[in-house]
Amino acid sequence: MNKNQFALTPPMGWNSYDYYDTTVTEADVKANADYMAAHLKQYGWEYIIVDIQWYAHDAGSQRDRYQYIPFWDVEMDEYSRLLPDPKRFPSSAGGKGFGPLASYIHNLGLKFGIHIMRGIPRIAAHNHCAILGTAAHANDIANPSSICGWNPDMYGVDRSREGAQEYYDSIFKLYAEWGVDYVKCDDICNTNIYPNNPYSAKDEIEMLHEAIMKTGRPIVLSLSPGPALIDKAWHYEKYANLWRITDDLWDKWDLLRNMFDRCELWQNHVSEGCFPDCDMLPLGWLGKGFHTDQSTWYTNLTKDEQRTMMTLWCIFRSPLMIGTEMTRLDDWTLSLLTNAEVLRLLQHSKGARQLERDHSHVVWFSHDTEEAADYVALFNLSDGKADLCADLSEEGITDQLSVRELWDKGSATLKNGKIYTAVPAHGAKLFKLYIK
Amino acid sequence: MNKNQFALTPPMGWNSYDYYDTTVTEADVKANADYMAAHLKQYGWEYIIVDIQWYAHDAGSQRDRYQYIPFWDVEMDEYSRLLPDPKRFPSSAGGKGFGPLASYIHNLGLKFGIHIMRGIPRIAAHNHCAILGTAAHANDIANPSSICGWNPDMYGVDRSREGAQEYYDSIFKLYAEWGVDYVKCDDICNTNIYPNNPYSAKDEIEMLHEAIMKTGRPIVLSLSPGPALIDKAWHYEKYANLWRITDDLWDKWDLLRNMFDRCELWQNHVSEGCFPDCDMLPLGWLGKGFHTDQSTWYTNLTKDEQRTMMTLWCIFRSPLMIGTEMTRLDDWTLSLLTNAEVLRLLQHSKGARQLERDHSHVVWFSHDTEEAADYVALFNLSDGKADLCADLSEEGITDQLSVRELWDKGSATLKNGKIYTAVPAHGAKLFKLYIK
Amino acid sequence: MNKNQFALTPPMGWNSYDYYDTTVTEADVKANADYMAAHLKQYGWEYIIVDIQWYAHDAGSQRDRYQYIPFWDVEMDEYSRLLPDPKRFPSSAGGKGFGPLASYIHNLGLKFGIHIMRGIPRIAAHNHCAILGTAAHANDIANPSSICGWNPDMYGVDRSREGAQEYYDSIFKLYAEWGVDYVKCDDICNTNIYPNNPYSAKDEIEMLHEAIMKTGRPIVLSLSPGPALIDKAWHYEKYANLWRITDDLWDKWDLLRNMFDRCELWQNHVSEGCFPDCDMLPLGWLGKGFHTDQSTWYTNLTKDEQRTMMTLWCIFRSPLMIGTEMTRLDDWTLSLLTNAEVLRLLQHSKGARQLERDHSHVVWFSHDTEEAADYVALFNLSDGKADLCADLSEEGITDQLSVRELWDKGSATLKNGKIYTAVPAHGAKLFKLYIK
Amino acid sequence: MNKNQFALTPPMGWNSYDYYDTTVTEADVKANADYMAAHLKQYGWEYIIVDIQWYAHDAGSQRDRYQYIPFWDVEMDEYSRLLPDPKRFPSSAGGKGFGPLASYIHNLGLKFGIHIMRGIPRIAAHNHCAILGTAAHANDIANPSSICGWNPDMYGVDRSREGAQEYYDSIFKLYAEWGVDYVKCDDICNTNIYPNNPYSAKDEIEMLHEAIMKTGRPIVLSLSPGPALIDKAWHYEKYANLWRITDDLWDKWDLLRNMFDRCELWQNHVSEGCFPDCDMLPLGWLGKGFHTDQSTWYTNLTKDEQRTMMTLWCIFRSPLMIGTEMTRLDDWTLSLLTNAEVLRLLQHSKGARQLERDHSHVVWFSHDTEEAADYVALFNLSDGKADLCADLSEEGITDQLSVRELWDKGSATLKNGKIYTAVPAHGAKLFKLYIK
Repeated sequence: MNKNQFALTPPMGWNSYDYYDTTVTEADVKANADYMAAHLKQYGWEYIIVDIQWYAHDAGSQRDRYQYIPFWDVEMDEYSRLLPDPKRFPSSAGGKGFGPLASYIHNLGLKFGIHIMRGIPRIAAHNHCAILGTAAHANDIANPSSICGWNPDMYGVDRSREGAQEYYDSIFKLYAEWGVDYVKCDDICNTNIYPNNPYSAKDEIEMLHEAIMKTGRPIVLSLSPGPALIDKAWHYEKYANLWRITDDLWDKWDLLRNMFDRCELWQNHVSEGCFPDCDMLPLGWLGKGFHTDQSTWYTNLTKDEQRTMMTLWCIFRSPLMIGTEMTRLDDWTLSLLTNAEVLRLLQHSKGARQLERDHSHVVWFSHDTEEAADYVALFNLSDGKADLCADLSEEGITDQLSVRELWDKGSATLKNGKIYTAVPAHGAKLFKLYIK
Repeated sequence: MNKNQFALTPPMGWNSYDYYDTTVTEADVKANADYMAAHLKQYGWEYIIVDIQWYAHDAGSQRDRYQYIPFWDVEMDEYSRLLPDPKRFPSSAGGKGFGPLASYIHNLGLKFGIHIMRGIPRIAAHNHCAILGTAAHANDIANPSSICGWNPDMYGVDRSREGAQEYYDSIFKLYAEWGVDYVKCDDICNTNIYPNNPYSAKDEIEMLHEAIMKTGRPIVLSLSPGPALIDKAWHYEKYANLWRITDDLWDKWDLLRNMFDRCELWQNHVSEGCFPDCDMLPLGWLGKGFHTDQSTWYTNLTKDEQRTMMTLWCIFRSPLMIGTEMTRLDDWTLSLLTNAEVLRLLQHSKGARQLERDHSHVVWFSHDTEEAADYVALFNLSDGKADLCADLSEEGITDQLSVRELWDKGSATLKNGKIYTAVPAHGAKLFKLYIK
Repeated sequence: MNKNQFALTPPMGWNSYDYYDTTVTEADVKANADYMAAHLKQYGWEYIIVDIQWYAHDAGSQRDRYQYIPFWDVEMDEYSRLLPDPKRFPSSAGGKGFGPLASYIHNLGLKFGIHIMRGIPRIAAHNHCAILGTAAHANDIANPSSICGWNPDMYGVDRSREGAQEYYDSIFKLYAEWGVDYVKCDDICNTNIYPNNPYSAKDEIEMLHEAIMKTGRPIVLSLSPGPALIDKAWHYEKYANLWRITDDLWDKWDLLRNMFDRCELWQNHVSEGCFPDCDMLPLGWLGKGFHTDQSTWYTNLTKDEQRTMMTLWCIFRSPLMIGTEMTRLDDWTLSLLTNAEVLRLLQHSKGARQLERDHSHVVWFSHDTEEAADYVALFNLSDGKADLCADLSEEGITDQLSVRELWDKGSATLKNGKIYTAVPAHGAKLFKLYIK
Repeated sequence: MNKNQFALTPPMGWNSYDYYDTTVTEADVKANADYMAAHLKQYGWEYIIVDIQWYAHDAGSQRDRYQYIPFWDVEMDEYSRLLPDPKRFPSSAGGKGFGPLASYIHNLGLKFGIHIMRGIPRIAAHNHCAILGTAAHANDIANPSSICGWNPDMYGVDRSREGAQEYYDSIFKLYAEWGVDYVKCDDICNTNIYPNNPYSAKDEIEMLHEAIMKTGRPIVLSLSPGPALIDKAWHYEKYANLWRITDDLWDKWDLLRNMFDRCELWQNHVSEGCFPDCDMLPLGWLGKGFHTDQSTWYTNLTKDEQRTMMTLWCIFRSPLMIGTEMTRLDDWTLSLLTNAEVLRLLQHSKGARQLERDHSHVVWFSHDTEEAADYVALFNLSDGKADLCADLSEEGITDQLSVRELWDKGSATLKNGKIYTAVPAHGAKLFKLYIK
């Protein structure tokens, strides 16, 4: 098994976090899976990911004080392994874990993923719980000084201790039995509580990889949170499939704009099985689990900003994870997620790189891998409409090519290897250049 | 009560750490107290301090793997308050805590101190234990992201939570009832696991101070570990009595030599009730608790280096804490600890400052507060004997003064306000200048 | 000579920078000196300081491109010593330097000061100019890697080179001959172009001190720019009289508000001859030299903010340097600068310390050194009027004392050691507590 | 022109620095070129590079005090362009510059390169010298705050000034006229005097690139010094051909060992026209120009360490620059530089990556681009001989392949995809795996 075969192109899917925070239920997951199978699967969308704290009792019930209630009950088996909270995931009762839910999703022709926190439950360490396949106990392998800065559930695992790899093997054995296809591991890509040692979980990344290899199941490994460390690019590329190159992205222009920095930095690190990750798409309705009253809000990104986001993610070839509740998708948002010509870049382009960037505009350029075609994206970072120009003369582009804009489906012309176009504030144009 | 009145001059005492690590017992403490009362009290020595993990069961029993066994049993009352381990401190049984031992020490005419870790026991938080005088529980006030980098026992306390000050009040109420005179609080002066926020325990320093004031008992407050933060000097001076200006000092010349940096930095911050602390004196026999076989070693400092240490601590006016097992004191070491003319500087000098320092020598100068006398210390940092000169002409010193060396009890002469003297490698001379 | 005798209390004066930038002329200086002698001298104001680039030809003539024209002509003698530009300082012609101007000011009963940049002129190094009293030339002592980040005139001087101290001796010999009473040396307190070595000019501070001592003239030494380094407090205190604890202060509330951080930090470092410096007072009309059209602006600080500034500077005991053109002083501003009861704190108070500070208010407390009186200042940091309380009960203040507010000359009462008062937004009250 | 075409494989050549420092002469350069043409050209060696300060009068004449004499005479034309010192480069007299020397080298079938410092001569700025093709003068474009930390010759150029690009155009016009094939620009890859802004010369890299493109001559651009900034990898790759990934490498094991860190970091950044540079090879006799007495020393690297260096540089595909005086080459050193099977990796391998690394050993793996062959290098970092194993089973290597060691020309066998071999202390083995 070669881990790069687990994800030949950037994964596309849905993640429960942006809408549900810690509160997602089995019914919610199934409803979104049903929607995806019916409306999005045909465009390449396939992963359904259950995000953080599916094991936590009463998750979200003290949202005014805590996102993650500290020192609280979790669902755990006799081997220190966290299980789904049966109140929220009824099919998991009786030790079945996520198996039934995974089967449901597989039967829809989709794939199933879960979020985990790096490490072993703190409570398992304090209670000296057992670990499968070893005489060591949780307190033997837990590192009392290795914690997450923003979630109170786990202690890091000390690789030098007997039983450490066995612990990771034991949880991935379980996940493989359940039928998990994708694991998003958190507090591991950048352990930002340790600013002098943000890659303190390096050993744990290697243990995760080894545990996956031992399962024999091609489980995609996604690492969070960002920003990923550019000096560890070679290590992510060796052991993982996805790594978050940014802190959490939300629906704010400043955060979106900042992604141009991140993509610039990582542009030469996208390859088969290796995908720098721009984070979930905060489109449509968001945030139900973030408020005590379960109120939601509609994305604060303008339509032009949403196009900018989709264009950048697609030409850069970031994984695409829908953050909204899909059953509430409106036509506009759905249109963004089903533009086959744009989504094509995820599967069939490569070599994307930034041609120009200053405070007011950005140009990216890429190539189709199947057709004799190139792509150029123009982004307007300024607060007003702007006339932009992409100069492709040094890229060998000649004026004989046809030019098609992939969002508005219009055409354009090349003059001396240049494309001139007006772009709305914070907006984008994405052109395909091809032989007539 | 004014906290500066609790320690008008630098405290002098004995601390169990350098010899016993976590393993000290009641019998050990008493034996050392007996020794101090018999042999050292007359020179001003008065504190007996029980250092780290007096509450921990089996402390030191896994010394090959851990200094502090993580996730292990501790002695704790129903209010989340740690108590002495009754196996090691039998008189504490039946809820008497350190009361009987404190009484024993008081009856010898000495004072009693204990070490604590900042925060509340982790196990109390995980078990939702009560806190005296409030409806809040340990899990309500414990901050799951505030830990010590080198000891696994506690979580920091979040001042913004109801019950936080009550918790600190409750433990100092207990200490006052026991008769504690001195508290050395650890993981608080520099919370070095957080390099971007080493003063993360600022609020807890203020809570400690408030709790002490509420007891009505003049409990000296000592903060560890170092290095203390010079930009917080004003805050230490406002709320504490002692603060460690260095990481742990052991019996190595490099560490001792480094103390000249620290004393230079803090020279203008020594005043009544405010004592920058150079750490314990690693003299004589050391380290029984640090090895599984209980082997000990004799200090690696040469005799000259030991004089340098005593001279610097005394002219700078650091607190003096003996680290060795006193019942094993040899004549040489005893002589260092009972030189009344040298120890006098702790009680009766002020205004010490560094006159010169380079890679090979240092000169300090100070004044007696009762007599018309000054002090000058010359230190030889080089690896060979050196002829040094202290130029005191700019300090108003005239050649009419008498000069006495306080270690060898010899005399010297002033020429044009200068003292010339030979000093052995790593050694020191301490002169008193006075009117005949 | 003891440098601490050169400035027993914080210097009070006028500085040309805030109004004239690099463009001040002899006539301007005399006009301000005349004004001070006539109207302010009686309140303790005495220094007249000529700030930056008095030696630069055409200074300020390219203000749209440069504050300091790089690679331009300077007035310099045969020994690499900068002299006043004779176009702007006509009395300096014929080698008289600032002598005539200093005499003029002395005859008014005032004192005279100048600004210098650390180091030796770059052009002197490139032209291999001579240095008085040594065979070395400027190129021998100039350090080509030691420059100022914001002014292009000088190279730092390498103390290890023969001729280095002689150069500093030679310029202070000149200044003493001219009759200079005060030197503000810039690019030396914090050499901020070197973030890893901001105290790179440490040796030059010592050379300055030595050069001053050799003159036999009590020249006050002021170091800029800030922020001064708190870990070098002992070194400033040993060699200098004033050191800037902040970057340039201008007439913005944010900058003024930030000074509470700086004063908190330095509160325990104010003593005879040692004055942490809060920078010039940007009051009245400002900025003529900063614009090509010589337009000026009136301070952007509100009247309440101005009181806050004066109150903090006086209770903290910062040096006071007027930044405005004094001949344009209006009655309000003049009243701030001539409140004898407030200015009294500079000469006759000590022990000031911050009692309380949070995001909305600050309380400082101090003592009169001649009378049985204390001072308390309350500052309102919030954007609206606020009812504040200073709790002085722990400071031993009893309700029998009389209370007088020193700006509005009103009275107040103590209740249980507390003063309650309303303070306008960004404003201050300064109370004197005394026995009737 | 595409800059990646200027260097399809890593450049191989000789550089004057390690032997001559600043003192190299035309005769020295010719002698080395003659040697290369006669003995090394056939193995792919082709560049002859004149390193630092070829323009400086009296270079090296004050070597006891300075490596680079500050504020000294340089050879410069009327347009602020540095020219070769005619004393050391006689053929340059009469304005011919390096033209005659370049011709000489070209006639040998070799290529010619020079070293430059970023920026414009300081003396040109102070003297307001002209710039070709613009009305601006050197003082208009020189940035007085942009200097090199270790060389005193230049000021950085401010791209925003009119005349800035023209200056760089003018010097490259000259270099192209001379026939320069390679420019090593210094103080630009990492401007380490500015630790908070080490990429302060970003604009100047772009100006260099633009100036080269304008010449129409394929001049290879090499950037120094290192360490290059991994977060700017994309920018180096866009504008330059080589960039130094390390500070100066000298003949010390510690420095060589450290190169494994650097190669690990940069392993995924080697491609056509883009070569992370491990610095010159300090082999054979070294250092004549570094001592006043012109004494030389023989490399301090052991023979095994030398093999390690050659092996790492070749499998990683670093540029290879000989540092020694070639006319003094001994047989051993010559054998290292003429092992065709090893050098083949520079031209005909790709995809090198590190398989394993710990404190005692390293394994690298790569592929031939023309033959069905792979390469594996084993390095022994420990201080004693060690039995090492390279596990290639996960790389798809089967036991049917033949194995040849390329230094000792021995054979080895594969067992279960593993090669076992003994490697001397600090030594290396380089195996080729191929189908019989």
